[in-house]
Amino acid sequence: MFKRITLQFENQVARVTLNRADKHNALDMLMFTELAAAQKVIKRDRHCRAVIIDANGDDFCSGLDIKSVLTDRLAGLKLLWKWHPWQPNLAQQVSVGWRTMPIPVIAVIQGRCWGGGLQIALGCDFRFTTPSADFSVMETRWGLIPDMGGNRALMELSRRDIAMKLAMSADTFDANEALRFGVITEIHDEPLAAAKAFIDSLCQRSPDAISAIKTLYQKHWLSPLPRILRRETWYQWRILLSRNQSIAVAKQKGKDKSYQRRQSW
Amino acid sequence: MFKRITLQFENQVARVTLNRADKHNALDMLMFTELAAAQKVIKRDRHCRAVIIDANGDDFCSGLDIKSVLTDRLAGLKLLWKWHPWQPNLAQQVSVGWRTMPIPVIAVIQGRCWGGGLQIALGCDFRFTTPSADFSVMETRWGLIPDMGGNRALMELSRRDIAMKLAMSADTFDANEALRFGVITEIHDEPLAAAKAFIDSLCQRSPDAISAIKTLYQKHWLSPLPRILRRETWYQWRILLSRNQSIAVAKQKGKDKSYQRRQSW
Amino acid sequence: MFKRITLQFENQVARVTLNRADKHNALDMLMFTELAAAQKVIKRDRHCRAVIIDANGDDFCSGLDIKSVLTDRLAGLKLLWKWHPWQPNLAQQVSVGWRTMPIPVIAVIQGRCWGGGLQIALGCDFRFTTPSADFSVMETRWGLIPDMGGNRALMELSRRDIAMKLAMSADTFDANEALRFGVITEIHDEPLAAAKAFIDSLCQRSPDAISAIKTLYQKHWLSPLPRILRRETWYQWRILLSRNQSIAVAKQKGKDKSYQRRQSW
Repeated sequence: MFKRITLQFENQVARVTLNRADKHNALDMLMFTELAAAQKVIKRDRHCRAVIIDANGDDFCSGLDIKSVLTDRLAGLKLLWKWHPWQPNLAQQVSVGWRTMPIPVIAVIQGRCWGGGLQIALGCDFRFTTPSADFSVMETRWGLIPDMGGNRALMELSRRDIAMKLAMSADTFDANEALRFGVITEIHDEPLAAAKAFIDSLCQRSPDAISAIKTLYQKHWLSPLPRILRRETWYQWRILLSRNQSIAVAKQKGKDKSYQRRQSW
Repeated sequence: MFKRITLQFENQVARVTLNRADKHNALDMLMFTELAAAQKVIKRDRHCRAVIIDANGDDFCSGLDIKSVLTDRLAGLKLLWKWHPWQPNLAQQVSVGWRTMPIPVIAVIQGRCWGGGLQIALGCDFRFTTPSADFSVMETRWGLIPDMGGNRALMELSRRDIAMKLAMSADTFDANEALRFGVITEIHDEPLAAAKAFIDSLCQRSPDAISAIKTLYQKHWLSPLPRILRRETWYQWRILLSRNQSIAVAKQKGKDKSYQRRQSW
Repeated sequence: MFKRITLQFENQVARVTLNRADKHNALDMLMFTELAAAQKVIKRDRHCRAVIIDANGDDFCSGLDIKSVLTDRLAGLKLLWKWHPWQPNLAQQVSVGWRTMPIPVIAVIQGRCWGGGLQIALGCDFRFTTPSADFSVMETRWGLIPDMGGNRALMELSRRDIAMKLAMSADTFDANEALRFGVITEIHDEPLAAAKAFIDSLCQRSPDAISAIKTLYQKHWLSPLPRILRRETWYQWRILLSRNQSIAVAKQKGKDKSYQRRQSW
């Protein structure tokens, strides 16, 4: 079905793998459209508990495949086009689409994570990387600005001076700096194994509780206290009236039960 | 007056002590209502300069006393009930009630600080802990989400990925991790002594300046620059027209003067 | 032209130097008005790429020259006066004026950076300091609150508990603490040289990309995702239709070209 990526489901966990290793997984039009299509498939499956995004080859993603996009003028237009200013265009969708999905999404990063690649990683909830991974907000090297939605995430993960410095300078930085800057979540020698172990532990929890927490932190990061109080209580009522909460209690007491599919969050 | 807590006033500082050491200070209905009642008493006293919240026994608070709340079905309803969605219910009140009090509130934490206990601590302005204290956002273990208002604080203290990880996983973490995550303010071998010394230093400052700063940082963390500019100037005018500002100048010049009670902030 | 400061332009970089070393560069009325005047000169020059703010003598700025402001009662009124509550008064202008300027502004700090001096530094985008620099939010020592607009920056650079502690206590803190608290960006033995090198690297980038990024991070730090998506795309279109973007591509390919003056951001 897909040429630039692979999509697999295993134990209710979706795994999206960038599959263009010979080109450092650079983003061409086909990869953009396939990523957006994969998001739709995953979002529709309310049994799916989490997503891993990783990459074949030495690099996570070296950014936009400038040549391929420049050759096809219409492609550039397709990437940036939007019907409503406040909706994501295709370039933004492949990043923020992970953010608006009500299940945890983990990027597993090795090698270069540059430009559009970093934007995709910033759209995920968690970023696990190898110690030798290498990062850059690349866009200003081409006279452009980062415009794939990752700026919102950077504002929630880092300080204003650091975020501006990274975006303005387009300098590369290593995994330790990235951790200090807030750009990545954790460094592991085997980030894929660490991501799987983390997802295993989350799968012990009720899918509705996990989805409610993600929705709260993604949609209401900027909501004032009264709105948070309202959301917390509303979500808790929905959870209390669901089957999955009592299943969670039973599991906590050592019983062997399986969760039902999550509500729509 | 109180059974589950004690409330003392000394040198214009209120001290609320969780007093159910045999149950690890777990929160039952009586403790909820007594904490809310203590907040009212403290808030009414405009001479009071600061609040310390600590706990008798080995643990700060192990969270909700599930058994006691489950036995009394009506209790659970009372905890969650609210007349207006955006107002705090009783469970939220015992956390965010400290936040909306216009004086500094310091949690002094030892041992376990789990679930509802952590939510109460997050409602305070500062968290001083022993090196061996132990933390967990506990709620997802019971299929629930943290719903006592502490999420707003976590968003102001930590990064989005860390905050989500703590809330989703319900893992325990130690004092050093808590410091790194932004969940606690300072680690001390004697956190109560450190809290008292900190409050002593704040009491050298004008109560109106302290209250104005707390109000600015609690209510306007999410206000855009023009609103901040308006608030800053408005508060400064109120302060300049008050007696306490000139008393502060006199004290700074070495004169022995006492502050008047604070304005209403 | 100026008595309390000097203003020089070199290679399209403006340098504002506080020039009252005998008084530790304390802020009197003349320095306030001269700083505001310098901001106007710099803002008008759309060829200017960046601003450095530094200080002659041992200290960056020891804060308000209380004596000079108290002697002249009208001066105090002039500092605080504003026609519209949400607009900056003169005291706020000398801090937030740097923030609303669409080019990078770097404070180069040595010695004391106290009170109003720290507020000016917080209005800059980046703060480079010597290892021995010394900081304090000084205002509560005089019964006042920090009211020059720096609170907004502190909220974007630090955690709520740390920010409140610094503002309430008026304690001094050294460069290492300041770095840990998020108050400064980088420590250098030669911060002026480091600032110049950083600006040199930014000058390789298109002035429109740099200005768009600053505007995005300054104006939209609190904007929800849909507004960020709209701004990103709108700015990118403006950039794509400008000459400077293709000049950036040419420079990246090794050609020797010069940027045109920036658009109005």
